Amino acid sequence: MTELAAVKAALKSQAVETPSWAYGNSGTRFKVFAQQGVPRSPWEKLDDAAQVHAFTGVAPTVALHIPWDRVDDYAALARHAEDRGLRLGTINSNTFQDDAYRLGSVCHPDAAVRRKAVDHLLECVDIMDATGSRDLKLWFADGTNYPGQDDIRARQDRLAEALAEVYGRLGEEQRMLLEYKLFEPAFYTTDVPDWGTAYAHCLKLGPKAQVVVDTGHHAPGTNIEFIVATLLREGRLGGFDFNSRFYADDDLMVGAADPFQLFRILHEVVRGDGFGSGVAFMLDQCHNIEAKIPAIIRSVMNVQEATAKALLVDRAALADAQAAGDVLGANAVLMDAYNTDVRPLLREVREEMGLDPDPLAAYARSGWAEKIVAERVGGEQAGWGA
Amino acid sequence: MTELAAVKAALKSQAVETPSWAYGNSGTRFKVFAQQGVPRSPWEKLDDAAQVHAFTGVAPTVALHIPWDRVDDYAALARHAEDRGLRLGTINSNTFQDDAYRLGSVCHPDAAVRRKAVDHLLECVDIMDATGSRDLKLWFADGTNYPGQDDIRARQDRLAEALAEVYGRLGEEQRMLLEYKLFEPAFYTTDVPDWGTAYAHCLKLGPKAQVVVDTGHHAPGTNIEFIVATLLREGRLGGFDFNSRFYADDDLMVGAADPFQLFRILHEVVRGDGFGSGVAFMLDQCHNIEAKIPAIIRSVMNVQEATAKALLVDRAALADAQAAGDVLGANAVLMDAYNTDVRPLLREVREEMGLDPDPLAAYARSGWAEKIVAERVGGEQAGWGA
Amino acid sequence: MTELAAVKAALKSQAVETPSWAYGNSGTRFKVFAQQGVPRSPWEKLDDAAQVHAFTGVAPTVALHIPWDRVDDYAALARHAEDRGLRLGTINSNTFQDDAYRLGSVCHPDAAVRRKAVDHLLECVDIMDATGSRDLKLWFADGTNYPGQDDIRARQDRLAEALAEVYGRLGEEQRMLLEYKLFEPAFYTTDVPDWGTAYAHCLKLGPKAQVVVDTGHHAPGTNIEFIVATLLREGRLGGFDFNSRFYADDDLMVGAADPFQLFRILHEVVRGDGFGSGVAFMLDQCHNIEAKIPAIIRSVMNVQEATAKALLVDRAALADAQAAGDVLGANAVLMDAYNTDVRPLLREVREEMGLDPDPLAAYARSGWAEKIVAERVGGEQAGWGA
Amino acid sequence: MTELAAVKAALKSQAVETPSWAYGNSGTRFKVFAQQGVPRSPWEKLDDAAQVHAFTGVAPTVALHIPWDRVDDYAALARHAEDRGLRLGTINSNTFQDDAYRLGSVCHPDAAVRRKAVDHLLECVDIMDATGSRDLKLWFADGTNYPGQDDIRARQDRLAEALAEVYGRLGEEQRMLLEYKLFEPAFYTTDVPDWGTAYAHCLKLGPKAQVVVDTGHHAPGTNIEFIVATLLREGRLGGFDFNSRFYADDDLMVGAADPFQLFRILHEVVRGDGFGSGVAFMLDQCHNIEAKIPAIIRSVMNVQEATAKALLVDRAALADAQAAGDVLGANAVLMDAYNTDVRPLLREVREEMGLDPDPLAAYARSGWAEKIVAERVGGEQAGWGA
Repeated sequence: MTELAAVKAALKSQAVETPSWAYGNSGTRFKVFAQQGVPRSPWEKLDDAAQVHAFTGVAPTVALHIPWDRVDDYAALARHAEDRGLRLGTINSNTFQDDAYRLGSVCHPDAAVRRKAVDHLLECVDIMDATGSRDLKLWFADGTNYPGQDDIRARQDRLAEALAEVYGRLGEEQRMLLEYKLFEPAFYTTDVPDWGTAYAHCLKLGPKAQVVVDTGHHAPGTNIEFIVATLLREGRLGGFDFNSRFYADDDLMVGAADPFQLFRILHEVVRGDGFGSGVAFMLDQCHNIEAKIPAIIRSVMNVQEATAKALLVDRAALADAQAAGDVLGANAVLMDAYNTDVRPLLREVREEMGLDPDPLAAYARSGWAEKIVAERVGGEQAGWGA
Repeated sequence: MTELAAVKAALKSQAVETPSWAYGNSGTRFKVFAQQGVPRSPWEKLDDAAQVHAFTGVAPTVALHIPWDRVDDYAALARHAEDRGLRLGTINSNTFQDDAYRLGSVCHPDAAVRRKAVDHLLECVDIMDATGSRDLKLWFADGTNYPGQDDIRARQDRLAEALAEVYGRLGEEQRMLLEYKLFEPAFYTTDVPDWGTAYAHCLKLGPKAQVVVDTGHHAPGTNIEFIVATLLREGRLGGFDFNSRFYADDDLMVGAADPFQLFRILHEVVRGDGFGSGVAFMLDQCHNIEAKIPAIIRSVMNVQEATAKALLVDRAALADAQAAGDVLGANAVLMDAYNTDVRPLLREVREEMGLDPDPLAAYARSGWAEKIVAERVGGEQAGWGA
Repeated sequence: MTELAAVKAALKSQAVETPSWAYGNSGTRFKVFAQQGVPRSPWEKLDDAAQVHAFTGVAPTVALHIPWDRVDDYAALARHAEDRGLRLGTINSNTFQDDAYRLGSVCHPDAAVRRKAVDHLLECVDIMDATGSRDLKLWFADGTNYPGQDDIRARQDRLAEALAEVYGRLGEEQRMLLEYKLFEPAFYTTDVPDWGTAYAHCLKLGPKAQVVVDTGHHAPGTNIEFIVATLLREGRLGGFDFNSRFYADDDLMVGAADPFQLFRILHEVVRGDGFGSGVAFMLDQCHNIEAKIPAIIRSVMNVQEATAKALLVDRAALADAQAAGDVLGANAVLMDAYNTDVRPLLREVREEMGLDPDPLAAYARSGWAEKIVAERVGGEQAGWGA
Repeated sequence: MTELAAVKAALKSQAVETPSWAYGNSGTRFKVFAQQGVPRSPWEKLDDAAQVHAFTGVAPTVALHIPWDRVDDYAALARHAEDRGLRLGTINSNTFQDDAYRLGSVCHPDAAVRRKAVDHLLECVDIMDATGSRDLKLWFADGTNYPGQDDIRARQDRLAEALAEVYGRLGEEQRMLLEYKLFEPAFYTTDVPDWGTAYAHCLKLGPKAQVVVDTGHHAPGTNIEFIVATLLREGRLGGFDFNSRFYADDDLMVGAADPFQLFRILHEVVRGDGFGSGVAFMLDQCHNIEAKIPAIIRSVMNVQEATAKALLVDRAALADAQAAGDVLGANAVLMDAYNTDVRPLLREVREEMGLDPDPLAAYARSGWAEKIVAERVGGEQAGWGA
């Protein structure tokens, strides 16, 4: 296989998981601007996700969020997905929207609240059994707002205990993906603020516990690709929650704020043999003001473009320049790939996959946007955070 | 008057405005945790604010937020306040919660939306006439989420036009306070991101336009007291929205995250003759997880303590050390005031004002908290952001 | 003229000023790694700058730094430049390396130190008269390290007084470019920390006072292109000091850390009619570990590529999408230009200018690097900061 | 023993290590302002350190930096220290000032450079054997300035290999303290950027490898006390490099920028039983513009004050409020200790130790400052970074 053929094959095999909640309404603490045609049920979210996969060809799975996507019959939901060419993906837990969780969930000072939270996590594993999902993604809103509010260290002990119980419940092929986040909604400490904390917990749990990197969850200036390289070296990179930020956890479309950073991250994934391995590529975004389905299609395309550039890096030339200590030469090899316009290549890839080379235009022509606005009348729209 | 007597007199004359919305429920985009006993109307918010003033003696005015605090009869509302020893304070506009404002208000590309927003601002001045408020505080959620989304510069032109119309409507004794904010809810640009932008607009408008500094609205590392000193030097510091942040616009209790910074800010206010002038001291906080009235009392006390320390700075000794280039000596003079425990002094001040020296304990004993939980049943609780 | 011809013409007319000090050694506080062949005098710096211009065609002027580039005969220096196809550019003052400036220069508490500093600035204008330079660029290291160390506001008064004296000395066609910087070498306050402070001083001085934006001098998260758009709208953007940063004032090659940001900045320049106007495009970089001349050539090329992309933005389509409130469509128009590989276009431009299409390869083949290593033996190498 | 007696006993037993290099000249990349009376040799640095200990009573050890403090006879140096009531403390390596280290030391692509660096580290252990030092502190300036410059992951492999060799050389009672730093002097990646990376390496090395927290080495917004609590929980907190920052690694006096943060850090140390254990309290500061010995005395006092406040926290009341979920109450317990003026207590402690209650005034009266200015004439002053 020629090198270009290998790049194309890799791009065709890429899989980006889209999150069910991104199809619903979302907003900031100030306002949720509702959009027309938004799904009113998990079933309709899958219908929309199927559109994204139909036009991109690389978004075959959908992440669910419990309880937002709770249904009576997960097997039926899985069939609904399959009928549309999709599979159910990662199960995301929610331990931040019940009134009991005001001061935390698995780290709460009250054992009864912790029990409730752990029971929810165990229920999520039950759902994974039903859906055939591989990954349980855990993000905890736990933390404190004021110095002294709770005992930072005791909360780590409680966290470790909860994780251990859930880990013990995982099946042979199931994984626990532990997400970290510097702040929000907690504003003094979060209980898993950084990759180091997530990594330390995963180490103690075992090989099925992996760290997930949300690209919006770091302090300003953090070098995310370094973390990616390090976690791959340690065998602990479970996956990504992709999105963009300029300031905090802005949850904009991936690749919208710093496409060069996204490229550098994917370069480390490729270099660390993380592409095509178990590393999950997931979106976690909020389309607060823009049309949701096109925004998700665009996001998938942005991931594809960054991946294509990363695959095009001349690694032999790069290694030579690095070994020679040629700072400018090595940088130039990387920049040469980044500066390449890979859109023609991706159009070719899509045509070879039997797709329209321009997914956004094809979606716009499809009439789906008009159809859902017309049909999804009445009922309650799904909302992120509700 | 001895120096200590002057400090006490200044502390007794201090006035901290509390915001009506801080008495209602608030939260993050993830969840609003409702609390029991929360007010269900502007009238009940004033009842709570009266408690804060009753126990601290230095919170005589309450800021209103339109439309959250819209009533049919503002004169009646003002009487309700006066009956409780309060006055109505700053009027805050809201141009971010109507569906029309998805892409902005006064900066929106559509002239009809801008008209709607300006009309709201003009209505706020009408209300000021009715309430006798001096200040119109303008914070705009306007901005963009994606590069290219709108024309940054054209939005400035639209903003200038809107401000000019509203400024022209102000009465002789009324002021416009223009607030800036780096980000949120807009995540690429905001239309008034920094003090420089607010200042430039105020300059063009005239002397009744002043900049308001929200202590949570800056980029990491920004030296806020420098901005305070500069605005005072320029005669353009209209006031403060006090709160605390560790990360972004966390809206925690003022003095909770960096009490030394609060002291430094108040030192510049005192040094710049801003204390006792027209500079408004306002709180703008969200008590998402803690009890609201005690949190506000505590916040007022934190402002008092920082003010007391600032008033205690030995300014002659400081000036001498500064003139001598004595870096450590000058710093030591400032730190000496900061390290002083001013709580005994403030207890004395309160006793001289006929108050309980411990406002929080006195409030706890008063039974108000239990009373509102018992009585405020049914109806709809007020919520920040709703 | 076709649109493409106009883009090419604009690119051919671009002028990027290179700084004399970037050809000398530089480093961090930890270490200056000396390189072979580095110039030993202003004359040799011009020789190197001539290479950059010879291979890029768009670097016709060189900024000088006084006293680093002090010579007895500036007319002779100007002729030396002209003989090599160059002109002398902006004069940069230095008020941070004399022992007298430990606590500041024009803001120092001691009037004698201020006098010394102002005299130096006046000397710089004398030099401008001799060199024919248009711009005096002022960056002040002034500031304080500790709270209380000096009076923030009094320092502003001293600054204003010094600037006024120097401004009064400017000739009809001369300008004062005032640079701001958040921190370093002062670590508590700087006396011109942000664009607002620089702008406020410039306003009071008059139209010949303009703000200069160094792309590495902002707090994390600052939207630089907003500042650019605002200063252009106010008629106060004097120019840029281009470089790159990941963390602080890293002074890396422009375009190396966030090429998308550089593009957005240049988009606002083009949109605000700042291209081809009096806005100066200057580099201000430290090539601590990489070869200096190739790094400067690369930097010039990076500015060219970002400019080319900005010129290619379909502004009519952009305006239409913006007016329609089409968030994704407007963003897509901008991204389409950014994602274009403009290197072929620039190769064409260079060929039409009679240059080698690949400046870096041509420079490498030229033998200049080997020549200066061989010839510049003995004497003292020029160093940034020395 | 009463509680107060216990607090006093703890304060008397505290030991803060001062760094030899803080007595010498230091500066920024822009300028080193030399001060009069600065030591010209390791012997004179110890003389100055003895003054700090004489007046504070809690600075009994001095950290050395190799090669800056290289002497022919370390036993003689140790006796010189003992004669002055001091002991030699931590040995700090230096792998950033040799020309060979332009692209790194232990992570350099060239094996010969790595060998040279490791040999230096092994030499440091030899010196530890001679001085009786317990700790080898490793900070690496290694990193890259440009994306692609070197292989991030391969550098980790090289780092691990070097650390393992040095670890193997440690004696039974010796420790390796691994420091992390986000940036500077490398501006794209550093090879040990965060506590997670340092921790991961220490885990693989063994129990004698511990993480050291420099309070100036984090991204903006990082919650340092969380890291402290976590490392203590993991048994991997080797010690602190104390200093203050407003922006980057400003290296100001500890407690000068955010005294509340310092208190919170020490609260976690006390809570995690890290006080009086093997956790080393070291200063690592640069007194660029202020008098050096008084600045170090002041820094030691700042650590004492924060420690005293941390020791005064009513831990039983705190635990009760935390268990009850009383957010404001728990915060109030912590703030009560912080707001206490502990300077009278520390004056008492000093008097009980036979010291002057005011170390700075006593030092000023001692005549030492005048003596060293008069006597230390000729020779070459010691400089940080040289």
